[in-house]
Amino acid sequence: MPIYAAPLRDMRFVLNELAGTAALRALPGCEELGPDLIDPVLEGAATFCTEVLLPLNQSGDSEGCTLANGAVRTPQGFREAYDGFRAGGWTALAADPQWGGQGLPKSLGALVEEMICSANLAFGMYPGLSHGAYMAIAKHGSADQQALYLPKLASGEWSGTMCLTEPQCGTDLGLIRTRAAPEPDGSFRITGGKIFISAGEHDLAENIIHLVLAKLPDAPPGTRGISLFVVPKFLPTAAGRPGARNAVTCTGLEHKMGIKASATCAMAFDGATGWLVGRPHRGLAAMFTMMNEARLGVGVQGLGIAEVAYQNAVAYARDRLQGRGLDGAAAPDKPADPILVHPDIRRMLLTMRAMTEGCRALAALVAQAHDVGQRHPDAAARQAADDYVQLMTPIIKALFTDTGWEAAGLGMQVWGGHGYIRDNGMEQFARDARITQIYEGTNGIQALDLVGRKLGTHAGRYLRSFFHPALAFIEAQSEVPAMEPFLLPLSKAFGRLQQVTAEVARRGLSDPFEAGAAASDYLRLFGLTALAFAWARMAEIALRQGPEPEGFYKAKLATARFFMQRILPETSSLAAKCLAGGETLREMDAALF
Amino acid sequence: MPIYAAPLRDMRFVLNELAGTAALRALPGCEELGPDLIDPVLEGAATFCTEVLLPLNQSGDSEGCTLANGAVRTPQGFREAYDGFRAGGWTALAADPQWGGQGLPKSLGALVEEMICSANLAFGMYPGLSHGAYMAIAKHGSADQQALYLPKLASGEWSGTMCLTEPQCGTDLGLIRTRAAPEPDGSFRITGGKIFISAGEHDLAENIIHLVLAKLPDAPPGTRGISLFVVPKFLPTAAGRPGARNAVTCTGLEHKMGIKASATCAMAFDGATGWLVGRPHRGLAAMFTMMNEARLGVGVQGLGIAEVAYQNAVAYARDRLQGRGLDGAAAPDKPADPILVHPDIRRMLLTMRAMTEGCRALAALVAQAHDVGQRHPDAAARQAADDYVQLMTPIIKALFTDTGWEAAGLGMQVWGGHGYIRDNGMEQFARDARITQIYEGTNGIQALDLVGRKLGTHAGRYLRSFFHPALAFIEAQSEVPAMEPFLLPLSKAFGRLQQVTAEVARRGLSDPFEAGAAASDYLRLFGLTALAFAWARMAEIALRQGPEPEGFYKAKLATARFFMQRILPETSSLAAKCLAGGETLREMDAALF
Repeated sequence: MPIYAAPLRDMRFVLNELAGTAALRALPGCEELGPDLIDPVLEGAATFCTEVLLPLNQSGDSEGCTLANGAVRTPQGFREAYDGFRAGGWTALAADPQWGGQGLPKSLGALVEEMICSANLAFGMYPGLSHGAYMAIAKHGSADQQALYLPKLASGEWSGTMCLTEPQCGTDLGLIRTRAAPEPDGSFRITGGKIFISAGEHDLAENIIHLVLAKLPDAPPGTRGISLFVVPKFLPTAAGRPGARNAVTCTGLEHKMGIKASATCAMAFDGATGWLVGRPHRGLAAMFTMMNEARLGVGVQGLGIAEVAYQNAVAYARDRLQGRGLDGAAAPDKPADPILVHPDIRRMLLTMRAMTEGCRALAALVAQAHDVGQRHPDAAARQAADDYVQLMTPIIKALFTDTGWEAAGLGMQVWGGHGYIRDNGMEQFARDARITQIYEGTNGIQALDLVGRKLGTHAGRYLRSFFHPALAFIEAQSEVPAMEPFLLPLSKAFGRLQQVTAEVARRGLSDPFEAGAAASDYLRLFGLTALAFAWARMAEIALRQGPEPEGFYKAKLATARFFMQRILPETSSLAAKCLAGGETLREMDAALF
Repeated sequence: MPIYAAPLRDMRFVLNELAGTAALRALPGCEELGPDLIDPVLEGAATFCTEVLLPLNQSGDSEGCTLANGAVRTPQGFREAYDGFRAGGWTALAADPQWGGQGLPKSLGALVEEMICSANLAFGMYPGLSHGAYMAIAKHGSADQQALYLPKLASGEWSGTMCLTEPQCGTDLGLIRTRAAPEPDGSFRITGGKIFISAGEHDLAENIIHLVLAKLPDAPPGTRGISLFVVPKFLPTAAGRPGARNAVTCTGLEHKMGIKASATCAMAFDGATGWLVGRPHRGLAAMFTMMNEARLGVGVQGLGIAEVAYQNAVAYARDRLQGRGLDGAAAPDKPADPILVHPDIRRMLLTMRAMTEGCRALAALVAQAHDVGQRHPDAAARQAADDYVQLMTPIIKALFTDTGWEAAGLGMQVWGGHGYIRDNGMEQFARDARITQIYEGTNGIQALDLVGRKLGTHAGRYLRSFFHPALAFIEAQSEVPAMEPFLLPLSKAFGRLQQVTAEVARRGLSDPFEAGAAASDYLRLFGLTALAFAWARMAEIALRQGPEPEGFYKAKLATARFFMQRILPETSSLAAKCLAGGETLREMDAALF
């Protein structure tokens, strides 16, 4: 069975030393954020993930969910785990204290999320979706809706869903057909079919609160005619208890490549009772205000998978004896050396490690900006922080989920034939990771968001939130000799990114197809450069440390050097691909494919 | 259900126009190789694959194999399909006419293999392993062994296996523990356990002929002490019929990520009767003479998966309506445009296409060299051709199987959420493809083979088999203006490859770890450059054509341009990674991983 131990040392490093908790403590509601608060949360989550969630990951994958008479049964043990998850207060971590939450910042929450995703990605979908519904109502619901639903969602007594996709539309939500007809009492009758609804039906919570995109009778066509509705499985009574069964049913469960313990439902709304959330026809905008956070969350899923794949690949590489080191026998008393001695095994492990730790660092920086953007008393400070979050969101979603898939693949490769065997658990990481590149906006859509919405907006203001600090860092460190091995590659990549950004933006202005043609390669170029900046900052911190028995900073520096020499060079090819232009994509006649 | 139509037009192109059949017809036994022979074979295989094998691909995946009382049942329909496969003469395609085979060259056989792998990779394992056993006995067996086994293996009445792996050894076969004790009658009693034995037990053939690596009592330690034995499931009677049951049993079936319809068996040899094949202690060398062909075969598996993933991704991209083209509406009468209009979808499809067609072209060139190397009457010509095959074998195995996995991943991505659903079949391609990067020597082992065995051997003679023709082509075409868009990128990549080759070889001489550190990136650099050479040759042919209604050459040129501009630039990063050296791989203490 796969192992997992939360990387607490590295999590404390990115939170306390890289991002720094001082800025967080300056935020309203975060004044108490010191080790006394942080350590029990991280350690408690680590214990719960290793002891409760991890043991259910493989069994959940084997059993999957089952549908009978409209009821979905989750795999054995999930109900008890969910009860324990609720009892531990984990559903309430990020919720507002006014609704029974703990009001902890994203900076801490994202680390807990990562652990959950490492231990059991499928399980994490249930509270993850509830959090999305919580956010939708918290940001756009009426005071009554908030009072009714938020305490239940925060406590996890009720769970939530996001009902967007229909058979004929995923990316293009303007094609939605689900209808909402107004009733005299102010409610609406919702009619239509939704697919791919995670946690649409299950046996973990006593009620399920669906957030549904649908069209009002007078809706203008396209995406500007979509409204958001709350549609509970059981209509709440006046006392706020689950009452009459609503006309929403699960009509099918998808059989998927992975996350099999997550119920992916086809849902039928047959004149179900719902209530408008926010303003008519503004449902998509409401969804989009949450989308950033959901996309960051999916990015963290990729990171979580990458971490657990790495840990298990290292464990195997230490154990498995095969061949002799090219430098001579490392374990002459044994029949062969551990495969950890082989350079290509090390290349794979260090690739996983450098990407994983780099992503964790970037996630911590963005999570902190998110907290500042949400909580800072000064509007200008909020905006500056939010600019950075806006810019980084598509990068985190796409780069991290690609990393999860690639790391899972490398982990399997380190395990050789044994990585292909289901019992060993490595292949599940790949199957589970694969969906993260697709849902919550495919990674191609993230790339279009970056070049189409983030590049030019506000005369490049978003861009400056990354470019200015990176440039300032490079300038400030340019006289530090020990930083040269990190700063030189960073500067080179940064220069490439600047050049390509200007060119892609210029071409995109006159020809959007050109921007689209460069988008995916550009996102990865940007992402790797952002990781390089994070790695250089981590190296700078590590270089300032004295001797340490643990070797943490020594490993940090070694991994930073590996990143700079063996991963970052990819930016040269990516730049060339971006600059190659879209002509070769346009040239091929549709009929000739 | 996924679709598949054999890409006959492109297959004829690489066989007849690129590789050229004239050289083949000059070979003994190939004199008749014209359209009258080629077309029925290709078309017959295409029909069988689409009509018989493809419909069993998904059902085979769902059902898998089952083991009860030592007997393995293959999925429903496999037995009938195998009977039809035999009846069609497909098991005998490459076998020697003296044993009932058709004696067709690899150049044709590889194309048929590709079709089988596209339609049903798991099914293809059964005849594929039999072919391996056939080759082992054909090359190393005694005259009696050949007369007994080869006709049965050629006809498919009997099937074969290769029993190498044991729990404690996969890559490092020196650790084998299976023992062979001599009997007075000249036979041996084989005792030990093998794992991951494809087709180790099944219900398709009346007998199963195991080729088993084991150690004789006087075996020297390590890989120089391994012998090869033939161990039939049923001991042949004097009349060549299956007789007494031998003491070899299937003790377990692996549950795998994919190729679930292929029985992957744990086999117990409990004093089973076997006979030595070839000389004592030379079993590994005997295996290695077949290994090249087996590795080419696995490369073709990757190619087959890439092709079928591409076809299904294109079909979906034509059908699926979502969003509007960035150049304006392409289908204004419909609610949205086919996603084929979107640049990022085109990027993914063209990546799949350019890699797939490039691999097919390279496979054709190597298959022809294989045929020359096997059949040419002149020893020098045989050697020259074999040099090229030796050099290209690890590249084909690793590059093509990586391509299969990447193309399957891209295919899923084009399908979006629907690609993650099992019923749609796209995710099966990824699961099936994944093993090809691992078995028959992991891709990391291929890279070590390239830098360790192929680079320096015979003072670089293998290398010259690629470098000289490529250089000659570049020089010959350098004055052709229309070739510039292909020749310039090729020359650049070629120059990089030359420089990196010299440097990796130089460093590797004094420090094998350095060669190992560069190996995987070097293999890909070499592979992409070899594809670029193949693409430039295809472009040169396409440019010579007159107008054609079909658009085949037009598409070839468009795809060639895409390859040069959007894939080949990867070589710049790969070169930088190779040249970065191994220091960052060595630096990290084992304890710090």
